[in-house]
This record gives sequence, C-alpha cells and structure tokens, in this order.
Amino acid sequence: MTPRLRIGVIGVGRIGAMHAELLARRVAGAELTAVCDAVPAHAERCAKDLGTRAVDNPQEMLARSDVDAVAICSSTDTHVGLIVAAAQAGKAIFCEKPIALELAEVDTALAAVKEAGVPLQIGFNRRFDAGHRSVHEAVTSGRVGDVELVRISSRDPEPPPMAYVAVSGGILLDMTIHDFDMARYVTGSEIVEVFAQGSVRVDPGFAEHHDVDTVVVTLRHADDTLTVIDNSRRAAYGFDQRVEAFGSLGVAASENPLAASAVVRTADGGHVPRLSTFFLDRYTASYLTQWDEFVASVSEGRPTPVDGTDGRAPLVLGLAAMRSMREGRPVAVGEVDVAVASGAR
Amino acid sequence: MTPRLRIGVIGVGRIGAMHAELLARRVAGAELTAVCDAVPAHAERCAKDLGTRAVDNPQEMLARSDVDAVAICSSTDTHVGLIVAAAQAGKAIFCEKPIALELAEVDTALAAVKEAGVPLQIGFNRRFDAGHRSVHEAVTSGRVGDVELVRISSRDPEPPPMAYVAVSGGILLDMTIHDFDMARYVTGSEIVEVFAQGSVRVDPGFAEHHDVDTVVVTLRHADDTLTVIDNSRRAAYGFDQRVEAFGSLGVAASENPLAASAVVRTADGGHVPRLSTFFLDRYTASYLTQWDEFVASVSEGRPTPVDGTDGRAPLVLGLAAMRSMREGRPVAVGEVDVAVASGAR
Amino acid sequence: MTPRLRIGVIGVGRIGAMHAELLARRVAGAELTAVCDAVPAHAERCAKDLGTRAVDNPQEMLARSDVDAVAICSSTDTHVGLIVAAAQAGKAIFCEKPIALELAEVDTALAAVKEAGVPLQIGFNRRFDAGHRSVHEAVTSGRVGDVELVRISSRDPEPPPMAYVAVSGGILLDMTIHDFDMARYVTGSEIVEVFAQGSVRVDPGFAEHHDVDTVVVTLRHADDTLTVIDNSRRAAYGFDQRVEAFGSLGVAASENPLAASAVVRTADGGHVPRLSTFFLDRYTASYLTQWDEFVASVSEGRPTPVDGTDGRAPLVLGLAAMRSMREGRPVAVGEVDVAVASGAR
Amino acid sequence: MTPRLRIGVIGVGRIGAMHAELLARRVAGAELTAVCDAVPAHAERCAKDLGTRAVDNPQEMLARSDVDAVAICSSTDTHVGLIVAAAQAGKAIFCEKPIALELAEVDTALAAVKEAGVPLQIGFNRRFDAGHRSVHEAVTSGRVGDVELVRISSRDPEPPPMAYVAVSGGILLDMTIHDFDMARYVTGSEIVEVFAQGSVRVDPGFAEHHDVDTVVVTLRHADDTLTVIDNSRRAAYGFDQRVEAFGSLGVAASENPLAASAVVRTADGGHVPRLSTFFLDRYTASYLTQWDEFVASVSEGRPTPVDGTDGRAPLVLGLAAMRSMREGRPVAVGEVDVAVASGAR
Repeated sequence: MTPRLRIGVIGVGRIGAMHAELLARRVAGAELTAVCDAVPAHAERCAKDLGTRAVDNPQEMLARSDVDAVAICSSTDTHVGLIVAAAQAGKAIFCEKPIALELAEVDTALAAVKEAGVPLQIGFNRRFDAGHRSVHEAVTSGRVGDVELVRISSRDPEPPPMAYVAVSGGILLDMTIHDFDMARYVTGSEIVEVFAQGSVRVDPGFAEHHDVDTVVVTLRHADDTLTVIDNSRRAAYGFDQRVEAFGSLGVAASENPLAASAVVRTADGGHVPRLSTFFLDRYTASYLTQWDEFVASVSEGRPTPVDGTDGRAPLVLGLAAMRSMREGRPVAVGEVDVAVASGAR
Repeated sequence: MTPRLRIGVIGVGRIGAMHAELLARRVAGAELTAVCDAVPAHAERCAKDLGTRAVDNPQEMLARSDVDAVAICSSTDTHVGLIVAAAQAGKAIFCEKPIALELAEVDTALAAVKEAGVPLQIGFNRRFDAGHRSVHEAVTSGRVGDVELVRISSRDPEPPPMAYVAVSGGILLDMTIHDFDMARYVTGSEIVEVFAQGSVRVDPGFAEHHDVDTVVVTLRHADDTLTVIDNSRRAAYGFDQRVEAFGSLGVAASENPLAASAVVRTADGGHVPRLSTFFLDRYTASYLTQWDEFVASVSEGRPTPVDGTDGRAPLVLGLAAMRSMREGRPVAVGEVDVAVASGAR
Repeated sequence: MTPRLRIGVIGVGRIGAMHAELLARRVAGAELTAVCDAVPAHAERCAKDLGTRAVDNPQEMLARSDVDAVAICSSTDTHVGLIVAAAQAGKAIFCEKPIALELAEVDTALAAVKEAGVPLQIGFNRRFDAGHRSVHEAVTSGRVGDVELVRISSRDPEPPPMAYVAVSGGILLDMTIHDFDMARYVTGSEIVEVFAQGSVRVDPGFAEHHDVDTVVVTLRHADDTLTVIDNSRRAAYGFDQRVEAFGSLGVAASENPLAASAVVRTADGGHVPRLSTFFLDRYTASYLTQWDEFVASVSEGRPTPVDGTDGRAPLVLGLAAMRSMREGRPVAVGEVDVAVASGAR
Repeated sequence: MTPRLRIGVIGVGRIGAMHAELLARRVAGAELTAVCDAVPAHAERCAKDLGTRAVDNPQEMLARSDVDAVAICSSTDTHVGLIVAAAQAGKAIFCEKPIALELAEVDTALAAVKEAGVPLQIGFNRRFDAGHRSVHEAVTSGRVGDVELVRISSRDPEPPPMAYVAVSGGILLDMTIHDFDMARYVTGSEIVEVFAQGSVRVDPGFAEHHDVDTVVVTLRHADDTLTVIDNSRRAAYGFDQRVEAFGSLGVAASENPLAASAVVRTADGGHVPRLSTFFLDRYTASYLTQWDEFVASVSEGRPTPVDGTDGRAPLVLGLAAMRSMREGRPVAVGEVDVAVASGAR
C-alpha cells in the first residue's frame, strides 16, 4: 500500500477550510498534517475540528519533514511568494487560482517551480466535474469529430458583496477565468484573439467599481474554432455552468444537475427541482476528484493534470479581454503576452 | 407510380371523421372515395367538407367498384356484420377496435375474413406511435436482451361521460384492451394468466355502473415474463401512456411527449410544459403511420401489421381480467378461451 | 361562421408548395383559390394535386376577385415588385423572408404597403414555434424579470448545395437573419450595435464563395442587454435551434424536441432518439400557427403579428453584421441605416 | 451549541463500516465513540482508520457512559437481543432493517423499547432520499390531491451471491421490504391485502433456493388506493429505484439520477450517462440525512422519523406476500398478523 501524501494547508478561509476538511476526512490517499492562517485563531480552530496540528506560519510548515505537499489557499497577493518558497523547500504545490494578477509575477513563480523541479497544480476544479470532463472526453476521443465552436455559460446564484467586487480584479479575472480555462480544456487548442463585451444589468454597484456584471466574450482559436462565453454575476435559479462543444460529427454538452431527480405534474404543467444554489452541493465531487488526481500524480511522479502553463494561459486571456472591453475592439493575445508575440511559446 | 388505394369510411363519428379527414388530406397513398353514416346528415356534411361522396348505407358502399377498402368506424355492435359483408364483397378491411365484445362473434368475423382471403387490420394505433414502437424494436433487435418484465401505464386526461361508461363494456374492455395489445406487441409472447384488481377512486359514478376507474392488471406470459398494467380514467396532468420493457441487457421505455420543448427556471425550480390533453395532439402521427402501413401492406399484398389474431387476443385477456376481478383470483387464459384450453391455438 | 380567407400562392417551389398544401388542407380558416409559378408546369401540377386553379402569372392572380390575399413565395429578387403590385391591387400580403437584400428596396415595398393600407406579414415562422414563443411569453409576462442576456443557437442538419450558397446573400442574411428576428422578438427591444465573427470550419467551399459556415454574433440592445448568436451550416445530429432569455428572476429556454419520447438504457448508458433532420418535422406546427394568425389578423382587421418593421429590422442587423465581419470591429446600427442614424425611427 | 450525540456502532461489516465512517467524519451532530464486531480484528481496523475506540463486545459498549446511542448493524438474527439489551441500558437505538424475520420477535423488541421509553429508528434510508421524499411531500402537501395509485420499481444492478440468497429470507423480505415501507411512506395509509407474483428470469440459481428474482406485488390500501411494486435482482443499466404517486390533481415521481448531467448527440441519436451502479453513489446523501434526523430527533426528544411501527409493518406485508406467492391468491393482511385481525392495532 502506498503511504498517504502528507499535506499542509496554508490559509483556512472559506475555500482553504473546505480543502482541509476534504484532505482530513475524504481523500483516501491524503493526510492533513498541518494548517496555518494569517489569523492564528482560525488555524487553531480548524486544527482542533479536524484533529491536526496548527503551525504559526508558512515558513514553519515548509520546514516540517511530515509535510510532503502544500495547498496554497491564502489571498491571491501571497501566492507567488508562497509558491517560490514552497518550491525552494522541495514541496509539491497545489495553488488556488489565480496564480497572480500580473503576468510577470506568474512567470516568477513558474520559473521557481521549474528550477526546483517540483510538481505544481492549479485549482481549476471544474476540469474535474464529471459533466464538463465528459465534454473534454467526447472531443479527445473523436466522438464529436473536429471541434468547430464551443459555448460556455457561467452564472453564480448571487452577486458577491461589493467589498469583494472592489478587490476581485474584475469579473473577467474573477469569474470568466474559469471559462477561459474551460475553453482550452475542452478544445485542446490555444486562443489567438479575444473580444469582450460587458454591461451592467444586475446591480449599478458594479459600475461604481468600474466593473460589469454581465459579459459576453468570444475567442478565436489558432485553428479558427470560435468559443463564446457568457457570464452573469446573478442567476436567481441557481448555479448555471454549462459547456457545449460542437464538432463535425456531433455535439457534447455538460448540463446543470438538478437538486433532485423528481417531477410533479399537474394541470399547470410539470415542476422540477431547482438547480444547486450552494457551491458545495454543485462542486464537492469535483474538488474530491481534483485532490485524488493531485495525490496520484505526485505519488506516481506523473505530470499534474493542471500545470503552470494551464494556470498562466487564462490570465493572459483575461488581460486581453480587459483590454478588449476597454478599447471596444478584438485584441490579439500577442498584444498582452510578449512571450506569445515573440514566438517564445 | 402505384395508384392510390380507394377507401370508404363507414361511420363518421368522432373517430371515423378523423380517419376520413386523414385519408382525404394527409395519407399520400390513399384516396377517400365514399363515406356513410347511420345519420345520413353526418355523412353529407363530412363528404362536403372533404370533397368526397356520401352514400346511403354500407351495402351501397360495398357495391361500388371505386372502393378498394373500407374503414369500419361505426359502433362496436355493427363491426362483425360489416366485416362479414365486406369480406364477402372482397374488400380490404380496416376495423376499429374492438372487433366485438363476445369471442364467438369475433370468431365469426375472422372466419369470414379467412374464407374470403381479404386483408384485415385492427385499429390498435398505439403500435404505430414512434415511442411505443421504439420499445418493440429494442426488444426485437435484442438491444435489451431477453425480456423479464414489462410495465405499461395508461391514463386519459378526463373520465368519459357516464352515458358512455354505461355502454363501454367496462374499463377492461374499453381502456385496458390497448395495454393488453401492447403487452403482446412489445414482448412478442403470449399470455397465460391474468390477475386484475380495480377500485373506484375517481368518481363514484363508476360503481353505479358496476365498473371501476382505477385498475392494476398483472399478466404472466408463457415464458414467465410478467407484465404489469395500471390504468386510470383520469390524469389531471394530461395523457399518460408509457411502456417499459426490462430485459437482461437493459430497459427500453416510451415516455410522454411534452406539449413543447421548453423550460422556465426561477428560484422556485423549473417549470416545463404539460402533457398533451387532446388525443389528436398525442396520437395523430400514430394514426397517419397506421394508415400508411395499411395502404402499403394491402397494395403490396403483404400481411397487415395488426391482423385478426391481434384483434382477438386482447379480447380474450379482457374477458379473463373481468373474471379475475369478479372472482378475486388469478384466471388462466384457457378458462375463458376454449381454443387455448384445447390446445387448438 | 366567418367565410374562409381566399389565398393565392405565388411561387410553388419547395416552400411555396408546402404553404399551398397547408392552405388547401390544414388551415381551417383558409381556402387555396389559385397558384402560379415562373414554371407553369409546376403550377399546373400543384393545382392538380390540391384541387385548385393554376393561373398564368401574378398579374392574373392579383386581378381575381376570389383572391383576398397572396402568399409571395417566389425568389427574393421578385419580392419587392410583387409586394408593390399586390398592395396596389388591395390584397392582403404574406411574404417569405427576406423582403429584399437592399434596404432601399425594402423601403420601397413598405411605402407601397403603407400607401395602400393593406396587411403585410413576413414569414419569420420561428416566432410561431411553441417553444420559442414560450420564451417570448416568459419575458412579456414578467416571469423571468428584466432580461439581461439572450443566447440563440441555430444549426441546420446539412450545408446547402454550393450553387445555393453562391446566391444566398451569405450566411448572415440567409441564416442569422432568423436569429436577428428572434433577438427582437424575445426581448422586445431594439439593437444598437453588432459584432460578427465567422470562420470556415465545415467546408472550404464556403471560403471560395467569400462566405463562412460558422458564425458568432453579439448584439448590444438599446437597454444594454446583450444577445449572443451562434450558427453553423452543419449539425450532424439534426436541427438545433434554441433560445434562452436570462432575466433578473430566472431563465426561459426553448430546447430541441426529440424525434420521439423514448430511451434505451444499457450498461453503456442511455440512448435517446435523435433530433429532427427534416424541416417539416421540426417546423410544420409553426407554419400552421403562422397561417392561423395571418388569417385571423386579416379577417379581424388587427395588425399582423410580424409586420413590415419586423421584416426590415433583421436586414439592417444583417448588413451591420456583414460590415462588422468585413472590418473586424463592432458596428453601430446607425452606420448602415440612415433612418436610425438620423433619428427618423 | 448542542453537544454531539455520542454513538457506538455494533457490527462493522459493509453497511456498519459505512455508518461508522459517516458518523466519524460527516455527520456534524454526531461523534463516533466506539465500535465492536463479532470479528475483533474488524473492529480494531475500523477504529484505527477512524480514530476511535474498539470495544470487545456489545455489552461493553452498552456499559460505557460515553455512548448515548447505538447503531445495530450486525446480522439480522442478533437484532432483537441487541435492541432489548440497548433499551434496558437506556440507549437511543438505530437498527438496520429488518428488525427480525418473525413477527413475534419483532414484538418482543418493540415491547422492550416501549418499556424503556428509549428512541428507536429503523434503517429505511430511502425515506431520506431527496427524490422519494419529494413524492411524499407532494402527497402530504396536497399538491397531487387524493392519492389513487402508486407505482414503485426497485432493481439492483447485479444479483447478490448465491450464498447470500440462501440466507436472505427471500426477495420479498430482502428487497421488496424497502418498497413496502415506501408504499406506506408516500401514501400515509395502511395496507389491507397483498397479491404477489414471482418468476425466475435472471438466474436459475434462485429457483434452487426456492426463491425468485423477478416480482410483481400489488397492494390494496384501506382506502382502496392500489400500489403496484415491481422488483428485479438485476438491472444491467444500474440502480433503478423509482416511485410515482398518482392523485386526483396530478402525479409526483421520483426518477433515477444519472451519473452526470451530460449528453452527446450524433447522427445516431443522443447518448446520456448511465445510472449509478454503486450504492454509495446512489444513496450516501440519504444515509447522511437519515443520521442528521436521528441525531436531531434524539437530541430534541422528538419522535424518530421511522419508528418501531414503521419497522414492523413491512415485515407483515412481506409475510403476507410470501403466503400469497405460495398459495397463488390475494392474502388479507389479517391472515398473517393477529394484531390486525383482532383489531388490536
């Protein structure tokens, strides 16, 4: 039997606490050996609930010999520094998305990872959703033929608090970034041009933060496939996250699961349950699979399923989309990524 | 090009008028050449609307050389006499179900047909419904393996008027008879035992007519497959007619079509359209296919898809079910059908 | 009882012959009194099949007193002349889309209609599809709240012959025009800006005709609602025509009907029927409703449900989309429509 | 904050180990304080995995002050003795179904529980499935009106090993018992007559054990509602467990969830994922809710949601069904339950 991968979690806010709980209780191949948080009391509480150890800071965690890997779940501005430190400490690294909001910083982090030769996986969990994955597989298996067009929809049940909006980096880097990743994941091809349009339809507060709440982005891939993404900060009817890949032989679609498989029919028609409105209901299975695959790839020395390149590319697309929206025109990816423009990638 | 089959319709009440219209306007291989009705004014009106000829009575119709086939849509008590006369006149015969309510009469009719060597098709239109047929095909093609159990549900949107209930022959001969046919159609095997249970849950008026409105019938086939049928005279939510065949390799099911393919989702859940409540919406396509296949089989000299045997067997099952319900016990088919009991069939 | 509206059909090619058959046989309020065609033999054949009269030319038809209305189903380049002539003859007019491919010509036709005060209805039949209409109604009834974003997909089962592509006016005027109409229909608001992207993914032959086969168009409405349309000339899996309207309270969606309501489940998963691949299967009901509403509105003197303005607007959007695709930038509707630019509308 | 309910698990075979894991890791209001098993090594291993204590035997567990409640998950023949002992020890009791295979024994257990005044909940977990519960709620809320007929289907993906069949008590007590419970749960009414039919269609081995593998049971309720149950020991396509309640105003149905919400459409039709084939995928959520409600009802001193009466009634129905199948006739419940016959209940 393979020994369990010993993981420490850095940052136990909402998402970090969830990861810690999954690692402690539900990921068969993992063991939660330490947690830390900028607020020590949060780490203490989490450690007590889950029967593990709280350490004072990331440095202490990285120094421990019973920590094989770290999950970086702290605020975005700390990601690069922690990735560099963890890489230098020789730890396997899981990092929540986004790596950073600036390309140069991302490149600093990726260089350190490359230098150290440690595994890195970025937290684009939707790749591990059974529905979205089935679209990817329908493409890679050839069942739908050559991909010609992709449609991606993402809507969250409720807009975030305005305090969050203020520091979110904007809808394109905060929400659409998942869809940029999905476009690359399901097609397997890179994107060369971006056109983004936005409007404020949900809450005028977004305009006050120079943000929008409703977005349509079209992507042109290198092979001329078109991807169209639409997003909204609000979906009164629950999480709406769908992907469709149209190909020469057919279409593969990931649809929204209902809260239950049931129907009531009366003279007024049929009534079916609503969609999930709580992200754990919708995505816990994907988080579990994400961890299973991280553990397996690290343990077996295989590449991780979502590597540094996969973490970097959506940021490039997000930056291009921001410029497109600002300037009201399609933007070539090379305009925002010198690496692409110079042919270095 | 094959000349069109010239058809006369006997009886232009609700169902006969529908057949006349389909034959006049929508069945490419057919031509409506005459109609008649016990109420001459009804035949006149129908003929005028559809641009055809009204004749005074069935005898006159059967004597015409421009009538290749007749559709017998008059009241059940006239079916046997008309079948015999039409057979003797050498016409191809389509007859609405049931042939008769007494086995001996059915056998008289079938003997005349056999003697004359004319084609006979009985109006079990549900066999031509695309959904139900797909269940039959999933069985005959072997996709679901050996059939082990069948479930059949039939409910009508509203109970018929009590005046009709009084002369209907009872729910088992009036409604369940379609399901008896379906059981034979989807399994391709004969039935040896029947157990029927009924209750009055919809309208106490049924009890006054010594009838019930809610029925469960279980059938044991010769190969020990079990079929279970449930019926109700009322379905507030629309026509509910479903068939499922469970086999060693899988299950094939025919489900209810919705009035439209649409959904509205709100915070309360999803709302989908209701089921059909008008029999033409639900079954016109099956009536058209029924006619296409009658015309094709008569024109090409092939056996009709629903022959006299198929018309007789459901009546036997209905009679056995009536006895079962009366006596509160399972009834062997041989108890009501001497032909079966004597091994003659 | 209201007398039936007497209609003549001009042009009995594929679509005209279908309209003639529906009018002759299935539209209760209509009577087909004459047909004509540029190829007289076609008119003769159609008249014989449907039991009506063939006339030599449109002029003769317009002169007849037993023709209350005409259906213009001839080639697009003849539409304007026939609309003008029919208007001057005082006939009610149904005209297939598009009215013309040039705005000035459309305006000539609409001016003649206005001058004569005759009813005009344009053949955007999808408005009468039960599914698409339910989306419109979910919006107008307020069930989904204020509309924020609309998604429209249209794909045809197979690309048209290249000979047709050559004269089609391009995918934006030939296919997307239905979706431009749908965007206006479901939102009830006008569009101010268009951005269109295309690619050749289905057949290189489209490039030879300076056309594309895959399209994404985004529309900005006057109230900042965004509509995104995607089209393809091929859908190996059948007709794919869907509309979704996302609003503040929910979403309304029109989905694709399956060829039958059935499923087969085995160890490999579930198998459901394919989508329609024949346009009559998919849209006959909408054509019938279209005629019922034309007949009713003309007979009762009410405005037609799809008037000249509704016929003109999609052409403006198509022209803007063509410019957008050519120039690689968003195009304001006012750039192509002086009437809009000058505030005249 | 309420202190957590401290629970010991007796018997950590397949189902007991699952309960232990849920209690240790996923039931917020519970704490797993001890486990024991007839095979001490199993208890040791389970305790180690879950970070709890293994005790030598049930007596030791019942003597502990840190055990508030016990989960009896050992073999059926031990249930009654353990219930009596746990009741005398004043512990709250959760017991897996069935309580026993003899009515007299069940009554002994229930008498001890009544005497001690301790809470008792029986493990009919399907009541806690969101889909099945929605049917119950559609009935109790009045949405579907008065119930007239109920359909219940249960099929397991694969037949159990013949060694298990030999000691299972037969399909009616092993499988159908869940459906007997469901019939009472969704209707809220008692059953007065049972008719059961079986056949061997899946594996001749069942016949060798005087058992069947395919079953249809019809139930007549006291108010004349009919329930029809069909079961099979095999469903090549996955778990198939559905419930439908037909009422005067409509129908409520619980359908099978798919393994994922996705579809691939090609020229051959649509392909959807298969049903669950692993019972944890299908029912973990129901087990969690079952525990949440046990914990809540014990903690708050409320009646448990599935009490001793609910545990006893399905056994009575199972015994009546066995007699019915043996004797080939409907059996009144009073024939097998003197308590019913004498009016004592």
